[in-house]
Amino acid sequence: MSQTNDEVEKENGGRFGQGFPPESIAIVGISRNGRSKVPGYDGLRLFQGLRDYGYAGRLYPVNPKADEILGEKAYASVVDIPERLDLAIVTVPAPAVPRVIDDCAAAGVRYVHVCSSGFGETGLAEGLRLEEELREKALKGGVRIIGPNCMGFNVPSKRITTFPDIGVLPEGGVGLISQSGGHARLFMMNAASMGLGLSAAISYGNGLMLDAVDFIEYLAEDDRTQVICVYLEGIRDGRRLAETVRRIVPKKPVIIWKGGLTDAGSRAAASHTGSMAGSEAIWRAFYRQTGAVRVDTLEEMAEAAMAFQMLRPLPGARAAVMTMGGGSTVQSGDLCGRANLAVPRFSPETQKEIPKFVSSVNQGLSNPMDVPGVLMDPIAFTRLLRVVAQDPNIDVLLVGLPVEAALGGFGQTTQALVDFNRESPHGKQVAAAITDNWGPHEIEKQCREAREMGVPLFPTFTGACLALNRVAGYYRFLGRRDIRA
Amino acid sequence: MSQTNDEVEKENGGRFGQGFPPESIAIVGISRNGRSKVPGYDGLRLFQGLRDYGYAGRLYPVNPKADEILGEKAYASVVDIPERLDLAIVTVPAPAVPRVIDDCAAAGVRYVHVCSSGFGETGLAEGLRLEEELREKALKGGVRIIGPNCMGFNVPSKRITTFPDIGVLPEGGVGLISQSGGHARLFMMNAASMGLGLSAAISYGNGLMLDAVDFIEYLAEDDRTQVICVYLEGIRDGRRLAETVRRIVPKKPVIIWKGGLTDAGSRAAASHTGSMAGSEAIWRAFYRQTGAVRVDTLEEMAEAAMAFQMLRPLPGARAAVMTMGGGSTVQSGDLCGRANLAVPRFSPETQKEIPKFVSSVNQGLSNPMDVPGVLMDPIAFTRLLRVVAQDPNIDVLLVGLPVEAALGGFGQTTQALVDFNRESPHGKQVAAAITDNWGPHEIEKQCREAREMGVPLFPTFTGACLALNRVAGYYRFLGRRDIRA
Repeated sequence: MSQTNDEVEKENGGRFGQGFPPESIAIVGISRNGRSKVPGYDGLRLFQGLRDYGYAGRLYPVNPKADEILGEKAYASVVDIPERLDLAIVTVPAPAVPRVIDDCAAAGVRYVHVCSSGFGETGLAEGLRLEEELREKALKGGVRIIGPNCMGFNVPSKRITTFPDIGVLPEGGVGLISQSGGHARLFMMNAASMGLGLSAAISYGNGLMLDAVDFIEYLAEDDRTQVICVYLEGIRDGRRLAETVRRIVPKKPVIIWKGGLTDAGSRAAASHTGSMAGSEAIWRAFYRQTGAVRVDTLEEMAEAAMAFQMLRPLPGARAAVMTMGGGSTVQSGDLCGRANLAVPRFSPETQKEIPKFVSSVNQGLSNPMDVPGVLMDPIAFTRLLRVVAQDPNIDVLLVGLPVEAALGGFGQTTQALVDFNRESPHGKQVAAAITDNWGPHEIEKQCREAREMGVPLFPTFTGACLALNRVAGYYRFLGRRDIRA
Repeated sequence: MSQTNDEVEKENGGRFGQGFPPESIAIVGISRNGRSKVPGYDGLRLFQGLRDYGYAGRLYPVNPKADEILGEKAYASVVDIPERLDLAIVTVPAPAVPRVIDDCAAAGVRYVHVCSSGFGETGLAEGLRLEEELREKALKGGVRIIGPNCMGFNVPSKRITTFPDIGVLPEGGVGLISQSGGHARLFMMNAASMGLGLSAAISYGNGLMLDAVDFIEYLAEDDRTQVICVYLEGIRDGRRLAETVRRIVPKKPVIIWKGGLTDAGSRAAASHTGSMAGSEAIWRAFYRQTGAVRVDTLEEMAEAAMAFQMLRPLPGARAAVMTMGGGSTVQSGDLCGRANLAVPRFSPETQKEIPKFVSSVNQGLSNPMDVPGVLMDPIAFTRLLRVVAQDPNIDVLLVGLPVEAALGGFGQTTQALVDFNRESPHGKQVAAAITDNWGPHEIEKQCREAREMGVPLFPTFTGACLALNRVAGYYRFLGRRDIRA
């Protein structure tokens, strides 16, 4: 049965957000030597990681056997800490977690982030029983649990992180909610090279009390967040998610990657976070009805976020494609076709204009265009971009560049793209993609530089097609919504 | 109307192969200063490239205005060269090519490789007329044309290349036929890092006389070639291609990437090589009926070739998937599902055996498996591989490794895979893939090392799923064929 947000919030002890990001944190389950009993989690590393990140709030180590840890006074229990805490991070083994929840309730701790695994996700009776015990104690004690089985969060603007190995991330407009800490971590590790800055990244593991909807609501209200990215495995209350997302979409794009939509993937989701994955058909209807942007991989999610951050609204997804080499042009056309990015014929005016400065030998004059000579000549290239920009059949320009050119730095070709986007003739914008980026290449630096200069350069052509289509689809959805309203 | 191979060969002057690779080559259109009139082609660079490659045959520069070029005596025309040539490479502008064909006919040159563009691919009346003139002159004069609008070939074992900028390629069992010289070049540039050695790579541009079928026939008879890769845009005689491929498939796999199967792609194919692309439905029937292995990108082609080279026949494509991290396991399952690689449940025996040495906390015991601890422990990992190998539900093992592990070198994990494939318990084989290889990474070296040790390590997980499925599909096709025969 579906609940209203008010009902859920009342049940869970209020809306998520007050006291987050936390200004005071206790770490429960912190050893003096960094040897944690729980594989993968280590309070000492989390403590050190928060310090290294430059966390400006108050940090309290909790260890009944220590007097001090890393020069900080240690407490036997959260109840001994002389302030009401925003957050306790718990890394003790699963069977010891219920007692920590009792302590947190007694101490009036707002949020308890349970890193520890060994709960519902095991599928075992003992894990399920422990999880139910956590819920009961938390509800009774007015404590809100993040997790369990959860890697936590990262808020660059507040210098707070529970991912100690990632380092400082650039601040920005992308908010990430992920049921998987591993995916959150990977997204963060690649965010900088994708040109993405983060407002917050929050993983929530089993989502026992606070789950995706609560965190999505939080990012919807957060002024720093311009684009919301969500990785889901399962969801407790599908109708509540749909209603929330539908409400937020007109304000900001909500990009959702739903894992476990195949048989094998859904079996894995069940044992990862104890999630019921739901069928492809149900989720297709969800996307159609809410206007959430569908992606199917982490890379697609990052590329869609990058496109939303870098492009103004697109009126449609009819692309003019310009690339180098016959085979590459055929491939570009096919990749557009498979990603449902339209590559229409040029208008008669454009067709008349182009031959005036593009030779017909080895140069395709139709769309997609094979224009190697033009791409190497900034004056001709700028002219071509402007001619194509005035074509009423075209919504967006997409330039395919070979990886060899990328590795050499694009030079004046990039400058032509930069200038075009700065001026945006006829309101048009241009994106670029590496056409042949397979096999390992070292183009990270080049990609980043192009993005810093305002050119959304994608590491793959398929990624660019999909991302552009998604941006256009979002605004198409908004348009239809306005007409209906 | 379809022709038999005999009819076509008679018309084109005999089967392709005699005199190839050529033992004597003239280069027609070679300047003294390397400044060619035809953009993109340069006889001097081709000449120098053949020398640098270590070509052991006889090389003749043809330039009526020079006495010698790079220390080699220059001839005014091919008719002046004092031997019957296997090959003339022509880089003069399109309008001058017919006269060169006349000269080659007079001199009894076997093959003429026409690099020059400006023929049928332009779609212009003049180009089409010139192309028809070439055909008539060649047929009358008993000369066979490769091209026009063609970048040529590379035969590492004979040190012969018309791709002067690629360098020496490793010899091996992969033969490539490509209508696009650009794709051939890109394939060759990535072949070494994909662990592929080449028997020959041949591009044929507009395919005026000799086309894909002739070259496929050649590779079918070539003992060095174990796997045939083909990139096609269009084909003159579909029935002849189908009959030829159907005949070859039982001997060696024929991997075909058909470009231009979408609207935009087929428009580009028309202006690239003047090809009629054909519909998706026709080509789907072609693949089904011939047993050709379908791929849809260059990367997929290289990965399928790598899988065919490294794996023995697979009886099926039911995979046991082992990876690290919950989210990554869900994703692996979904990628398998989308690539139609089956991930069946383990047999009851396997399910009973695994918990004996794999802990249930944070470790999925179903397929796909989330076994981070096991993958880091070579003894447990070896044991897991062996337990899974005896499962009758499993045809092949697939290990997903995070890029971080790859960048660090896999160490003992790789050794466990190497040992497994060396011994191949119960006839099973293992492959590996990077699960999170997005964003640019520098793992080329690691991938190559794993392959050199006998582990088919794919740069992407999707690529691995697709490639394994293709290998299995090929052998499934062979099995069905044997039953029908």
